[in-house]
Amino acid sequence: MSFSLAERDDTIIALATPQGVGAIAVIRLSGKNAISLTNQVFHGKNLEKQSSHTIHFGTIRDGDRVIDEVLVSIFIAPKSFTKENVVEISTHGSSYIINQVIRLFIKLGARPAKPGEFTQRAFLHGQFDLAQAEAVADLIHADSEASHAAALNQMRGGFSSEIQELRAQLIHFASMIELELDFTEEDVEFASRDDLRMLVERLLRVVEELILSFDLGNVIKNGVPTVIAGKPNAGKSTLLNALLNEEKAIVSDIAGTTRDFIEDEINIGGVIFRFIDTAGLRETTDTIEAIGVSRTQEKMKSASLILYLFDLSDTDLVEINRDINKLENLGVPFLKVANKTDKAKENIINELREKHPDSIFISAGKKENLEGLKARILELVNLDKFKTGNTVVTNIRHYDSLTKTRESLLDVLAGLDQEVTNDFLAMDIRRSLHFLGEITGEITTDDLLANIFSKFCIGK
Amino acid sequence: MSFSLAERDDTIIALATPQGVGAIAVIRLSGKNAISLTNQVFHGKNLEKQSSHTIHFGTIRDGDRVIDEVLVSIFIAPKSFTKENVVEISTHGSSYIINQVIRLFIKLGARPAKPGEFTQRAFLHGQFDLAQAEAVADLIHADSEASHAAALNQMRGGFSSEIQELRAQLIHFASMIELELDFTEEDVEFASRDDLRMLVERLLRVVEELILSFDLGNVIKNGVPTVIAGKPNAGKSTLLNALLNEEKAIVSDIAGTTRDFIEDEINIGGVIFRFIDTAGLRETTDTIEAIGVSRTQEKMKSASLILYLFDLSDTDLVEINRDINKLENLGVPFLKVANKTDKAKENIINELREKHPDSIFISAGKKENLEGLKARILELVNLDKFKTGNTVVTNIRHYDSLTKTRESLLDVLAGLDQEVTNDFLAMDIRRSLHFLGEITGEITTDDLLANIFSKFCIGK
Repeated sequence: MSFSLAERDDTIIALATPQGVGAIAVIRLSGKNAISLTNQVFHGKNLEKQSSHTIHFGTIRDGDRVIDEVLVSIFIAPKSFTKENVVEISTHGSSYIINQVIRLFIKLGARPAKPGEFTQRAFLHGQFDLAQAEAVADLIHADSEASHAAALNQMRGGFSSEIQELRAQLIHFASMIELELDFTEEDVEFASRDDLRMLVERLLRVVEELILSFDLGNVIKNGVPTVIAGKPNAGKSTLLNALLNEEKAIVSDIAGTTRDFIEDEINIGGVIFRFIDTAGLRETTDTIEAIGVSRTQEKMKSASLILYLFDLSDTDLVEINRDINKLENLGVPFLKVANKTDKAKENIINELREKHPDSIFISAGKKENLEGLKARILELVNLDKFKTGNTVVTNIRHYDSLTKTRESLLDVLAGLDQEVTNDFLAMDIRRSLHFLGEITGEITTDDLLANIFSKFCIGK
Repeated sequence: MSFSLAERDDTIIALATPQGVGAIAVIRLSGKNAISLTNQVFHGKNLEKQSSHTIHFGTIRDGDRVIDEVLVSIFIAPKSFTKENVVEISTHGSSYIINQVIRLFIKLGARPAKPGEFTQRAFLHGQFDLAQAEAVADLIHADSEASHAAALNQMRGGFSSEIQELRAQLIHFASMIELELDFTEEDVEFASRDDLRMLVERLLRVVEELILSFDLGNVIKNGVPTVIAGKPNAGKSTLLNALLNEEKAIVSDIAGTTRDFIEDEINIGGVIFRFIDTAGLRETTDTIEAIGVSRTQEKMKSASLILYLFDLSDTDLVEINRDINKLENLGVPFLKVANKTDKAKENIINELREKHPDSIFISAGKKENLEGLKARILELVNLDKFKTGNTVVTNIRHYDSLTKTRESLLDVLAGLDQEVTNDFLAMDIRRSLHFLGEITGEITTDDLLANIFSKFCIGK
C-alpha cells in the first residue's frame, strides 16, 4: 500500500477507540476540511467559528434524522496530532451509531483512513520523525513497565536525538572531504584523516553499543525467556502457579481494566518473564538429568535465565553439585533455588549456605520468600542499562539499519588504512549517513513508509 | 449494590471506551476533586485555571516517571454529563497505560466507578429522569435504525414528557379529592366525579396504548421473530443466505467499523428480523405439512411474521391453497412468496396472479426481486406507529409499571362505580401516581436505582 500525493489532501476518518461495548466511542477526522465537513452535520453552533482545543455539545444529523448527541473537539492546524485540522467526535459507544456517523461523513466526501494514516500524516508534517512514529505503535502494545518506558523514551525522541547527533558529526566530515574533491589538484586536506579515524571509531563504538542493546531491547519488548529446571516434584509448577496467581490478584483488582492475561508470562518488577515450555512443565517428567539430551539442552541454551529448583526435603548435595556443574557449562545465567524450606532438615540448609552461599531459600507451596526470589531474578537479568535511561534498540528495522551502518563505517576505516582516494572515502561515508538516516526517516522511500505504517491499527 | 450518600461525594474514575487495542482510550473522572486531582499529576499547565470545555496537551506523571503524553478535557460543574466536575483523559490505547493511570488516581484518592455510576450521578443531579437514563444504556446497545430511534427518542425525553403530562393531570384530581377529605362534614365536591371518570378513562386509553406498544417496542429492540416456511427444496436456505449475504456486503464495506455479525438476524429497512430456528432450516426436512404437528405450530404461532415460500417449478395450486388455508388459521401475518421465477412455467405464474394477487414473485437463487420482497415484508410488519414518532415502550420495567398503573386506574373506576368513600378513592389514585412516577424516577427507592444502574457497563 502506498499513498499518493493527492490522497494526502483527503480528509480521512476512522474510529480511534477499540471496537466493542463501552460508554463512549471517539471518531477522528483529519484534513483540510475536517472542521467544515463536521459543521455541515453538527447542530448546536457554528464549529468554523470556534477556537482550537475547545469542546462543543450538539447533535449529529443526517438531514432531519438525529444520529446521536455528541461532544465535538476541535483542533485547528497546525496545533493537532497530524498538524492538520482535526475533529474528534465523542459519541455513545454503539456500533450502530459509529457506523452511521462514519457513513455520513463518507457521503460528505471524507475517506476511511488506512492503517497508520493519522500517524503517517503527523510524520509527513514533521510532528515527529520515523523512529518516534514507530514508537507510537510500540507504546500502544506495551504491556510492561520496561517495554512502556522504552517506547515512551523513543517516542519522546531519546533514541532519535542520539542518532541525529552521530549523523551531524559525520555530515560535517563528509562535506569537508567532498570539498577536498573540488581542490583535488592542490592536495589540500580540510579534514584531518586522524580526526576522521577518531570520529569513525567513536561512531562505531556507539553503533555497536546500540546493536548490542537490541538483545536487551528484544527482551524488554518480548519478555525474558526463562526456564524452570529441576527434578520431578521439586515444585516447578507450584512455583510457576504461585508467581502467576500473585500477579493475577494484582492485575484483577481494578474492575473494568483487567488486561488479557497471558498464561506463563509474569511481570516481575516491570519486566516480563516468558516461561518457556511451561505447559509441559505442569505434567513433566523432565529432570535436570536430561540436560545432556540435546533437545532439552537447546531449549535451556535459548533461555536468558534458568531457575534451577531443588527440593530441600528430598535431595543430596552430590546430586545438586553435579547439576550445578552442568548448568555452569551451559553459559546461561542461572539461579539456585532451594524449595520447600518448610520441610527441610536444618543440616541441609546449613550445608547449602556454606557450599552455595548464593542459593535462595523459598517455599513455593507456602509462598514464602517469593519477594526475595523476584529481587534475585531482577538482579540477575541486570536491566540497569535500561533503568539508567540509556537508549535501547527495540525495533528490528532499526537494528538492520544500525548493522548496515556498522558495515559502512568499517569500510570507511578500511579505506583510511588503505589510503583510498577521497571519492571512495566520501562514498562510504555517504552510505553510513544513508543508513543512519533511514532510522529517523531523513532518508525514506514510499515502500519503506507504506511498510511501516501498514502495521499500525486503523484510527492511529 | 446500593450507593450511600458519602459515596456520592467521591471522585470516581473508569475507562469510558471499550477494552482492546485502539489508537486511543478515554479515562473519565467525575466529582468535586476531578480537576484538582488531575492537576496533581498532569504536567503542562495549571488545569485549575482553565475554562470549561477546553483541551490541554501534557504528560501524566507518577513522581518523575512519565506514564503517557495525553490530552485532558475539562468540564466544569454544572456544565458536564454528570453536572459535577468532569475530566476526560485521552491516552494512547494501551492496557498497560490505562491501568497505570487509573492506579495513580486511586492512589490520589479517586475511587473506581461502579457500573452506571456516571449516569446515576447525572440522574441524581437532575440532568435527566430515570427513563432517559435507561435510554442511554439502550442507545449503546441499539443495533438497528428502529431500536436506535426508539432509544434516542426516549433519551431526549419523548416518552417521559408523555408520562409526566398524564401524571400532572392525575395529581390535580388527587389533590382536589384530598382537599374534600378536609371538608368531609360539609359534603362538598371540589372534583367533579364525572370529570374524574372522564380523565381516568382517557388515562386508561393512553396507558393501554403504551402497554400495547410494548409488543412493537420489543420487536424494535429484539427483532421481529420471523419464520420461513415451505416444502423442502422450496429454496428456504437459499433465500436466507441471499438476504444475509446482501447485508454482510453492506456491513463490511467500511473497514474498521464492521460490527459483530449475528447469523440469522437481518436488517431490513432499519428493522431487525430475527429468523427462528433457521439453523435447522439449512438441513431441514420440515414441510408445511408439519404445521399440524403441535411443536412446529407453536413455533409458527410465536412468530410475528411467516414467509411462506413455494417453488414455481415444482408445485400445484391445490397444495398451495391447502397450505395457505392452514396459515390463515394460525392468525400470524404471512407473505406468499413464489420462488424460482426463472424456472417457472408461464401458466402457473398467470394462474397465481389471478388466484393470489398478493403473491410476490422472486428468484432467491438469481437474487431477483429481493428488494420487492423486502418492501412487502416492511409493509406487513407495519411499523408506521414507530415511524410517525409515536411513543413506544421498549423497557420491561416501564411495561411492568404501566400494567400496575392500569390496574390501579381500573380500581379507581370501580371505586367510582361503587361510590366508595373519598379516602379509598384517593388511595387508588395515589397508587396510580406512584406507579407512573416509578417510570421517570419521581418515585424511587435505593433498591430500584441500584438495580437499574447495575445493568450499565462500567464507565457509563
